[in-house]
Amino acid sequence: MDKPFEPECSFSERATQLTSSAIREILKVTERPDVISFAGGLPAPSGFPVDVVRAAFDKVLVSNGRSALQYGPTEGYAPLRAWVAADLNSKGAKVAPENILIVSGSQQALDLLGKVLVDKDSKVLVETPSYLGALQSFSLYQPRFVSVASDEGGLVPEALTEADASGARFLYALPNFQNPTGRTLSRQRREALVTRAAGLGLPVVEDDPYGELRYAGEPEPSLLSLAPDAGAHVIRMGSFSKVLAPGLRLGYIAASRKLIDKLVQAKQATDLHTATLTQMAVYEIVKDGFLDTHLPTVRELYRQQCGYMLDALQKEFPSSATWTRPEGGMFIWVTLPEGIDTNRLLQQSIEEKVAFVPGEPFYANAPAPRNTLRLSFVTVPEDKIRTGVATLARLIKAQLA
Amino acid sequence: MDKPFEPECSFSERATQLTSSAIREILKVTERPDVISFAGGLPAPSGFPVDVVRAAFDKVLVSNGRSALQYGPTEGYAPLRAWVAADLNSKGAKVAPENILIVSGSQQALDLLGKVLVDKDSKVLVETPSYLGALQSFSLYQPRFVSVASDEGGLVPEALTEADASGARFLYALPNFQNPTGRTLSRQRREALVTRAAGLGLPVVEDDPYGELRYAGEPEPSLLSLAPDAGAHVIRMGSFSKVLAPGLRLGYIAASRKLIDKLVQAKQATDLHTATLTQMAVYEIVKDGFLDTHLPTVRELYRQQCGYMLDALQKEFPSSATWTRPEGGMFIWVTLPEGIDTNRLLQQSIEEKVAFVPGEPFYANAPAPRNTLRLSFVTVPEDKIRTGVATLARLIKAQLA
Repeated sequence: MDKPFEPECSFSERATQLTSSAIREILKVTERPDVISFAGGLPAPSGFPVDVVRAAFDKVLVSNGRSALQYGPTEGYAPLRAWVAADLNSKGAKVAPENILIVSGSQQALDLLGKVLVDKDSKVLVETPSYLGALQSFSLYQPRFVSVASDEGGLVPEALTEADASGARFLYALPNFQNPTGRTLSRQRREALVTRAAGLGLPVVEDDPYGELRYAGEPEPSLLSLAPDAGAHVIRMGSFSKVLAPGLRLGYIAASRKLIDKLVQAKQATDLHTATLTQMAVYEIVKDGFLDTHLPTVRELYRQQCGYMLDALQKEFPSSATWTRPEGGMFIWVTLPEGIDTNRLLQQSIEEKVAFVPGEPFYANAPAPRNTLRLSFVTVPEDKIRTGVATLARLIKAQLA
Repeated sequence: MDKPFEPECSFSERATQLTSSAIREILKVTERPDVISFAGGLPAPSGFPVDVVRAAFDKVLVSNGRSALQYGPTEGYAPLRAWVAADLNSKGAKVAPENILIVSGSQQALDLLGKVLVDKDSKVLVETPSYLGALQSFSLYQPRFVSVASDEGGLVPEALTEADASGARFLYALPNFQNPTGRTLSRQRREALVTRAAGLGLPVVEDDPYGELRYAGEPEPSLLSLAPDAGAHVIRMGSFSKVLAPGLRLGYIAASRKLIDKLVQAKQATDLHTATLTQMAVYEIVKDGFLDTHLPTVRELYRQQCGYMLDALQKEFPSSATWTRPEGGMFIWVTLPEGIDTNRLLQQSIEEKVAFVPGEPFYANAPAPRNTLRLSFVTVPEDKIRTGVATLARLIKAQLA
């Protein structure tokens, strides 16, 4: 074939600022099967209920094929919206189906919230550190990020100052098993957070993809469920990616009707609607309580995997390193002695076919510590977790020596 | 249930400009089964190959379920990208799989192009009139639209002035059976257009959702296929919505690698990737040439439906009205005598349970004629086409009398 014709064009200011993410470049390397990768954010495919998904798509196409293949309403498939509302209400929220917008994975929720709430140079408050995918998504709308102090217990409500909140569009928070740290907000902090946000007139975006993956401790109330009593404005994002399967690309936003109306207008211009067939099949799967029987097996799998990694860290890592002990989710956050640069460590570990994500890109503002890293434990077999952690420990100790 | 808590928040400048589209509001009315609707842009569900879709989803889930349910690459499923490239090349283009980005329906292509190419107040050139969904999508990035003159033969290449093109980000054009007019560019105009665009350094976005739905005349070359010889920069958007089924939400962009790289970065921040399962199932459907046997039946259905409406217009409409005679696609564009306001006509016809879309919102710039309207003929049975057109004719004649 001829060399393809490759003309040039001018990119928008926002596109010029886009760069291929560090994580994305790393994931390319870690796709090689000989690499032990703690870098990914992929759920364990052994937890995917393939046969149940298959039966649901088949049932929908047999019983209702033409509707499933036709354009649908931008808001989402009405029975699925009602199911999401009922599910949230069973956990303490008070929402109606009209408060729910179905989206094409919760990454799209971030994009739509950016579109509708963020202007260039407007303030967006984030945790320290925060989810990299959210920082990237909001960045398309060119906000000014303000990092709110966090400690071992997650975001510190008292650190939310009036100056920070003034004119800010929202605070973006992940209260459960946060990506990247694995930290969880206590009930006390949740109540303090929504009360403080209400007092400051600051909307809070609650991103909770991992909340159903709790394998230790007791469930804490969602920020959404605490919002009405506090008079706070909480916008909740949820996802079917971690409880069912990410390749379906399905999630939701729960928000006030006024905000949902605006998000619907933005979604209409963005992708018209989320695939009808997918929404109908997922409704078919969840409507009779399948997740209640399915989630315990996923939680048990993740609990075991987390245990393998915590054991390996305890055994191999130097005593000068510290790490989080998550009660759910997929990530452990490691803080190494100061002076160790995890970007450099990654270059070395990739040589030895072990991958992780350095902590630096998860910080929206300088100064970003260079001695932190994120480990994902859910897709790696036990023996490889031990081997991989041992390799990292050896490289760290060599740097300390 | 308690009244839901309904807090307020501040919308972004772009969101404040968003309004619920006229079409959207009309479609709500026309969802009532007693309304004869020529307003929709929905393909005929009788053309959906439900059993073939069902078999494909089943095969993918049986043979490759865990991959189909896992996260996938932002660029899209590699075999589907290769199939799209080969399909375009079989019709005269010269592209590689790396020139293809799979998107969640071609509405998403519009959003991503807006994200990557449009800055606030930058110029975007559009046909007169143009596709309303594109105007809405680009509007999120706040461009200044410049309408390029069109006549019965579609966009007039000579009307593209140096002043209009100067600094413009691109020209957005639908060369086949345009939405809303049904007009098609001749080969001569296509060649003149790409040559002129090349001379002006103006990228052309070719949106071609209906190209495969030609039921009269001979196929014309895509702008993409004419681009290399002319030295023009053509970005092509395509869709599986009209050839297979819209509820799957699947389309593609073909562009230079440099632009694809940037669009991939934008898509990663927008929705990570398009559903893996859907891409694998559609690849399963198309890979052995299913569309070659399927499309003739869709074309024949649309040809018949178009004929019913043209017959009814000829029989019922006053001789002072004119309309297009499309060679494919889904739409006829009617121009009524000056002085007839189709917004007012719609209010009257809705009373009599007949719907269409007034032409005004398809014009990006004033002055927009108020005497045009778009008729969609593909989903309405023959007898209702006759009844609906007769009703419209009666209302028009009453206004003329």
